[in-house]
Amino acid sequence: MRSTNTRSARSRPTKRSVNASATPTQSFHRVDAHLSLLEGAEETGWVEFKTNTRVERIEQDADSVTVYDQNGNAYRGVALIGADGVRSVVRQTYVNDQPRVTGHVVYRAVVDKDEFPQDLRWNASSLWVGPKCHLVHYPLRGGEQYNIVVTFQSRQQEEWGVTEGSKEEVESYFQDICPKARQLIGLPKSWKRWATADREPIPQWTFGRTTLLGDAAHPTTQYMAQGACMALEDAVTLGEALRVHGNDWGKALDLYQRSRITRTARIVLSGREMGRLYHAQGVERLVRNSLWKGRTTEQFYDAIQWLYGWNVDNCLSESI
Amino acid sequence: MRSTNTRSARSRPTKRSVNASATPTQSFHRVDAHLSLLEGAEETGWVEFKTNTRVERIEQDADSVTVYDQNGNAYRGVALIGADGVRSVVRQTYVNDQPRVTGHVVYRAVVDKDEFPQDLRWNASSLWVGPKCHLVHYPLRGGEQYNIVVTFQSRQQEEWGVTEGSKEEVESYFQDICPKARQLIGLPKSWKRWATADREPIPQWTFGRTTLLGDAAHPTTQYMAQGACMALEDAVTLGEALRVHGNDWGKALDLYQRSRITRTARIVLSGREMGRLYHAQGVERLVRNSLWKGRTTEQFYDAIQWLYGWNVDNCLSESI
Ligand SMILES: Cc1cc2nc3c(=O)[nH]c(=O)nc-3n(C[C@H](O)[C@H](O)[C@H](O)COP(=O)(O)OP(=O)(O)OC[C@H]3O[C@@H](n4cnc5c(N)ncnc54)[C@H](O)[C@@H]3O)c2cc1C
Ligand SMILES: Cc1cc2nc3c(=O)[nH]c(=O)nc-3n(C[C@H](O)[C@H](O)[C@H](O)COP(=O)(O)OP(=O)(O)OC[C@H]3O[C@@H](n4cnc5c(N)ncnc54)[C@H](O)[C@@H]3O)c2cc1C
Repeated sequence: MRSTNTRSARSRPTKRSVNASATPTQSFHRVDAHLSLLEGAEETGWVEFKTNTRVERIEQDADSVTVYDQNGNAYRGVALIGADGVRSVVRQTYVNDQPRVTGHVVYRAVVDKDEFPQDLRWNASSLWVGPKCHLVHYPLRGGEQYNIVVTFQSRQQEEWGVTEGSKEEVESYFQDICPKARQLIGLPKSWKRWATADREPIPQWTFGRTTLLGDAAHPTTQYMAQGACMALEDAVTLGEALRVHGNDWGKALDLYQRSRITRTARIVLSGREMGRLYHAQGVERLVRNSLWKGRTTEQFYDAIQWLYGWNVDNCLSESI
Repeated sequence: MRSTNTRSARSRPTKRSVNASATPTQSFHRVDAHLSLLEGAEETGWVEFKTNTRVERIEQDADSVTVYDQNGNAYRGVALIGADGVRSVVRQTYVNDQPRVTGHVVYRAVVDKDEFPQDLRWNASSLWVGPKCHLVHYPLRGGEQYNIVVTFQSRQQEEWGVTEGSKEEVESYFQDICPKARQLIGLPKSWKRWATADREPIPQWTFGRTTLLGDAAHPTTQYMAQGACMALEDAVTLGEALRVHGNDWGKALDLYQRSRITRTARIVLSGREMGRLYHAQGVERLVRNSLWKGRTTEQFYDAIQWLYGWNVDNCLSESI
């Protein structure tokens, strides 16, 4: 959810409000998004939350699904939506594929406006690219904070995961970049470090009364900045599929997967290509520059129309 | 030089006449193209041809280049244009890089109109794609002949080169395709077989008074059908560079490489991606289909405008 225009999610932005805005994207802080979703779920009165509850086993019969947690407690329902993230137990149960570690490492930090360089306080998502690395910064919460996200191709063998970052490590990768971008590296007091991975897109998410959603269905690299967006689109689409099929779960879960698999695979595969473009070196770098140079804003938007043109009215279709 | 419209090259087509036609591409038989070029070169009276002459060694000084053939004969000139193909001795002398064998094998044959299936005699370049393989056919010489080009990903370790094809081998790769396309495989009496390769694009073609041109400069896979086209564009551009620099070879050879390296690298890299798209399987195949389905002719042409929009008036530019 990167943006050329920012706004707090406290006003509960929907995909519709995003599409209606002057620029095709908006960004918001994930905490705000989470709170909006939580409030919305609570308002319905239909959602029960369980924390400290790890699903470990799944059983299905013709009419129901039962999951068992780490304490052996059973939860029975008419369907199971596995939205359990990149290390999904639900995916592991039905697909059991391996992650594809990229070797690309992301460092992220949030910096308050006052500490952020005056000459970079642009109300836009900004990208600096270099061989095997890039930097992104964009305002959060109406410009009160700035998110700094830097990525580099690691010198060492990486394993998928998130840890505390080290100032020394991140600095060592950005020695040779131009001073204007370089100044960002020194700002954060602490960094989080993600060694990224994705998985090959799969042709089936629905297994009986169980389906996958979000990162469990389509873990992706961060290059398209669409991981959470896809999870939200999934949820809207599943809702629509249930609506048009009058809550027939069998039909709805099938329509849901058919509507989502191609689109999310395109985003996952595009993410890989974006990573390659951002980090291009040598002659490939010249080609990348020639692709971008002189492009009008309109041409840029046209090229991502397939991405941002999605909305609830066209979500039940196999080829968007 | 594949086409949606055909025409004999005996009338000496130029890039200009191609651009002026209703469709953005034309195809012609390479023998006809070679004859046109030969006649044109002979007409000038400035070109001397030597057959059975293999350049083996190159020497340069401040004012001249000398090449030595297999018999030790020396040829001295003001400049050397290494247009000696995929195994260029000139490139080997100055660059000495390795080919990148793709494992993709191309079979090609020309079939007379009468033997070509009535239901496939389309006046268009036609593409059939499948997992790890594809077929292309298009008319030659105004529809008197048809070119059949089929490609598959080899089961064995390949080495770059061209040999006689085997009917049994090519048939073994196209067992499962639909009958309409399948019938093409049985037609040719003999096939030629290319195990394809390309090379990484390089940032320098000009070394003193020597430069590279055509496949020597940018060997490519066949997926964009642009190998010979790029060689012709190179030649036109080099001519223009010499013209604007009043035959100052130093300046002209530099302008020539700056005008050509990015564009030809884009074509070489696009060729790799095209091969991947054509041969997609699994979910990637669904994504490929969604990209093509419902595209208008205009959208297809727009997407290759960068390729076919080239002409002699815009050839001296770094970013086309
Ligand atoms: C560096 C980085 C940058 C990113 N940038 C962007 C961006 O700009 N825009 C964007 O849209 N996305 C971005 N993303 C992606 C985004 O964070 C994810 O796509 C999103 O969080 C996925 O949501 P989810 O609900 O599917 O999974 P998660 O957010 O991972 O939630 C999964 C939940 O399931 C719970 N869980 C896991 N296993 C079990 C179990 N066995 N039993 C019970 N509960 C379980 C977890 O505790 C967690 O609460 C980025 C990601 C990274 C790493
Ligand atoms: C299967 C296949 C399909 C193709 N389809 C298309 C297509 O549809 N459209 C398209 O535009 N292109 C296509 N091509 C590419 C096209 O054939 C080449 O790009 C083109 O022939 C390159 O021309 P060139 O003059 O650079 O090299 P070449 O045609 O290879 O000519 C090089 C010349 O240099 C000579 N030579 C080599 N070494 C020496 C030496 N040491 N001393 C002296 N002379 C030497 C050779 O004998 C030869 O005459 C295809 C290629 C293949 C393999």
